[in-house]
Amino acid sequence: MATKRMGKQTVKFEKPPSIIGTSSVVGLKEGEGPLREYFDTILTDDLYGEKSWELAESKMLREAVKTAVQKSDFNITDMNYMFSGDLLNQLMSTSFAARDLKIPFFGLYGACSTMAEALSLGAMSIDGGYADNVVAVTSSHFCSAERQYRFPLELGNQRALSAQWTVTGAGAAILSNINTGPKITHITTGKVIDLGIKDVNNMGAAMAPAAMDTIVTHFQDTGFSADSYDLIVTGDLGAIGKEILEELVLDKGYNLNNVYNDCGLLIFDNNVQDTHAGGSGCGCSATVFCGYIYKKLMEKTYNKVLLVSTGALLSTTSAQQGQSIPSIAHAITIINDTV
Amino acid sequence: MATKRMGKQTVKFEKPPSIIGTSSVVGLKEGEGPLREYFDTILTDDLYGEKSWELAESKMLREAVKTAVQKSDFNITDMNYMFSGDLLNQLMSTSFAARDLKIPFFGLYGACSTMAEALSLGAMSIDGGYADNVVAVTSSHFCSAERQYRFPLELGNQRALSAQWTVTGAGAAILSNINTGPKITHITTGKVIDLGIKDVNNMGAAMAPAAMDTIVTHFQDTGFSADSYDLIVTGDLGAIGKEILEELVLDKGYNLNNVYNDCGLLIFDNNVQDTHAGGSGCGCSATVFCGYIYKKLMEKTYNKVLLVSTGALLSTTSAQQGQSIPSIAHAITIINDTV
Repeated sequence: MATKRMGKQTVKFEKPPSIIGTSSVVGLKEGEGPLREYFDTILTDDLYGEKSWELAESKMLREAVKTAVQKSDFNITDMNYMFSGDLLNQLMSTSFAARDLKIPFFGLYGACSTMAEALSLGAMSIDGGYADNVVAVTSSHFCSAERQYRFPLELGNQRALSAQWTVTGAGAAILSNINTGPKITHITTGKVIDLGIKDVNNMGAAMAPAAMDTIVTHFQDTGFSADSYDLIVTGDLGAIGKEILEELVLDKGYNLNNVYNDCGLLIFDNNVQDTHAGGSGCGCSATVFCGYIYKKLMEKTYNKVLLVSTGALLSTTSAQQGQSIPSIAHAITIINDTV
Repeated sequence: MATKRMGKQTVKFEKPPSIIGTSSVVGLKEGEGPLREYFDTILTDDLYGEKSWELAESKMLREAVKTAVQKSDFNITDMNYMFSGDLLNQLMSTSFAARDLKIPFFGLYGACSTMAEALSLGAMSIDGGYADNVVAVTSSHFCSAERQYRFPLELGNQRALSAQWTVTGAGAAILSNINTGPKITHITTGKVIDLGIKDVNNMGAAMAPAAMDTIVTHFQDTGFSADSYDLIVTGDLGAIGKEILEELVLDKGYNLNNVYNDCGLLIFDNNVQDTHAGGSGCGCSATVFCGYIYKKLMEKTYNKVLLVSTGALLSTTSAQQGQSIPSIAHAITIINDTV
């Protein structure tokens, strides 16, 4: 049997890759939220000096990579691979950024689970001896997502209370075989789960069963429990999905206790910012992880974190054809060096 | 330095994974082409008993996986990962197939380069000790691609002579650490290259420079040349892209000699089938590799093959915004056991 496998869906790394630097770029609204002090760059204009929201999103992703590389004392040419994706059709944000960055490139699509997917594959590439340094990065943009998935912004459509607010932001993390900083020790790769939810305005409910499946499998595969972690954080289940997840996990005999939170709830203050069920998008878990959580790991406020990015794999075509929403979640364990 | 790296962009595997089985499903037109005898399943109806072309494409992908697993004497549950992608927005074909198959899933997007991307990451996951068996699979469908990227089929639009014909087909390959059959020994991962081509009806010209960059880098990294191979085959450059590639490679001081061909030219007979510049789509290199080339490797007609799947990373949004076409190519070396 493959030597690094644990249980059904988990890998334990032999030489856990270090996360040696991160960077985050966010939009105006995210810059007014509770995590504002943790982000590197806060836009003053959602177009970021570009001609379209899609190009602005791509620039955020590119700048996040450049800053993360710089903060890690590397050059772009030191990056052996870029693992990256976004929500736009054919990964427009990522593809155009990869063109400028000229790093050998693996394009990924996992909807809002993409950050954990990128970190998982990036970690494999380093532990396996295929790379010295790689960058994992994702982005989303409220305006480009709204017009692609929903309505023209100009319509000023009313939003369902169960809907989430796509985060404008990009987060990049540099993984390396240099032994310093928090390490990715385990990954649990998700299966696609679909319990039949068809409401595109309630993606938290659609994704919660996938998050449950991955978290419970992670516990079973590794023997860990909520007690093993200082923080278990899902990507973007939002208020509704978070509550469903807690219940589903309880049904399976596990308890997430007081260590559980959701990036979509951390990034906005719904009382003030009117974001309804919370934040979402590839950029949600990416910026919360690369901004807030990484800094808390470096400060040793957190020493063991389980990041579970969650993705709803629908498309406008699948929804228009009456299909339900396939969902997925990938988990990664990040442990501080000294623990 | 990472122990398995060679040169700038190449990995040499320590324990080269075997390709122990493949399967291909193709549409009617592909089943009338020169490679008809090499495909496992030829549809008699492009809807494949489904209600939409997108669902038909997804069923092709799912059936290709099931058949490849069966032909490899495995069960679906023996697959540790599925590396997969397609051309549809948000990977509708792949996501819905992954839901039914329940294999831990990494979603990929590399446009028509996805098959080589999937084989590259799949090979890493096995050589690295993260998996025993994985499936790499991609699909495309003429009808779902036309209506997403171009025009409603009902319009009966005239096609440019430089345009290519999206292959209806899915190809799946099972990679394993069991030591039997052809092996993936090297991978060269591409960078995004864009020389400014904006004509969405001439993707061969847009992709040729990316193919050149990956092939020349592969030669430089490994010390191989065209003489090292029985067959060097690009994914879907078509007639125009193939000619440009040969010239670009020559300019760099290399010669592809008589070992070079293109999957898009192999799959159709343009004299009879009116496919203009040739075949394209994720399914093009996937079905030609999993159908034709794999069988020729098993028969020892070929013993050393370089598969270079090529992708044009444009979207309708990027084209409508006047952007040029970023392109990418990934190369994998497949060598027969006994060589």
